[in-house]
Amino acid sequence: MSEFRVIEIKKSVYESNDKQAELLRNELKKEKVFLLNLMSSPGSGKTTTVLRTIEGLKEQMNLGIVEADLDSDVDAFTVSKTGTRVIQIHSGGMCHLDAEMTRQGVKGLGTEGLDLVILENIGNLICTAEFDTGASKNAMILSVPEGDDKPLKYPAMFAMVDLLLVNKIDAMDFFGFSMEKLTERVKKLNPEIKIVPISAKTGEGVEEWTNWLAAEVRAWQEN
Amino acid sequence: MSEFRVIEIKKSVYESNDKQAELLRNELKKEKVFLLNLMSSPGSGKTTTVLRTIEGLKEQMNLGIVEADLDSDVDAFTVSKTGTRVIQIHSGGMCHLDAEMTRQGVKGLGTEGLDLVILENIGNLICTAEFDTGASKNAMILSVPEGDDKPLKYPAMFAMVDLLLVNKIDAMDFFGFSMEKLTERVKKLNPEIKIVPISAKTGEGVEEWTNWLAAEVRAWQEN
Repeated sequence: MSEFRVIEIKKSVYESNDKQAELLRNELKKEKVFLLNLMSSPGSGKTTTVLRTIEGLKEQMNLGIVEADLDSDVDAFTVSKTGTRVIQIHSGGMCHLDAEMTRQGVKGLGTEGLDLVILENIGNLICTAEFDTGASKNAMILSVPEGDDKPLKYPAMFAMVDLLLVNKIDAMDFFGFSMEKLTERVKKLNPEIKIVPISAKTGEGVEEWTNWLAAEVRAWQEN
Repeated sequence: MSEFRVIEIKKSVYESNDKQAELLRNELKKEKVFLLNLMSSPGSGKTTTVLRTIEGLKEQMNLGIVEADLDSDVDAFTVSKTGTRVIQIHSGGMCHLDAEMTRQGVKGLGTEGLDLVILENIGNLICTAEFDTGASKNAMILSVPEGDDKPLKYPAMFAMVDLLLVNKIDAMDFFGFSMEKLTERVKKLNPEIKIVPISAKTGEGVEEWTNWLAAEVRAWQEN
């Protein structure tokens, strides 16, 4: 085994965004609109999960979707086929959404009559974790093929979310994924987090997720 | 189907980085050291691929590895077990490496006696594509579970690399991944790209990859 050294490179700070985020959150609270910020790596199944969520909640509440991408429209196109109100944001190459970009998306979508807006954030486990978007709650998806070691490598994301969806659990055996190890690593970073294993493909576990989300929306609207 | 609109958010530009990158590239050329910038999403199998590459090339040339991560050391630790010279860079939350950060990594590692330095970039398909690190060549890994539609969503990355490794091909049937569709989408963005399907787990296809890399290193050193 050879030795290795570590170089620390200084991190920049984003302060004014927090105020913008708080402002948006307060506005949405008054309008009784719940904003969910949904984050993940590319290819973790975010859009399929959004489709399952629409299916599970559309009878109980009015949903709208804000799709964020670098410059494609494929996700918004897919969601639009369900008849759900949807808008696509292009970040023009930026890897995150800040509160101002989120505001543009939410206002562009239009909140009239909506209970829940899901922001499908840009596919990324890093930058998206650093910006408060103004969301009521934050959730992330980790998919099984990415591995159970990801909390060690992207701790900020796992530490900041309220709920973790572990997607593609139908592939668990194939990839030798340990839910126990993952849970232990995640809880060390975030003892309060709720973890829900799902397969957006087969639908397994999705009801636990939509029940949690529906309860959060109701609590947001009532208090 | 509902309609959707698109909001364009302006992209920032990074100019001075290009000069720094050219400077580093020229220095390394004089030292006859080839720098490979290896990029991918989190969980695509970058470190396992690096281990296979070390195994395949260590008899032919001297290798060093620069591991870049937000703040963990797990990858450098794994690589160090092979006895290969390795250094860990912490980006402190930043999602990319620029040429100056790369220089710090490469100089920290030390290039004396090395033919090839592999920079295992931060797990990310967005920001890493925007910065010239000063590398001799750029490669990326897309893993099968991420899906064959990723070129549509992260075009900048697929357009800028010289070679694409498609990893986890042992999982192709499970995920209904189409190598044909992927190839068509990638070639539209980048007609010159070389695509090499591999399984870093089983070793399938790895020789084609290490042969390409060895030939590029020799060409760099000779011309």
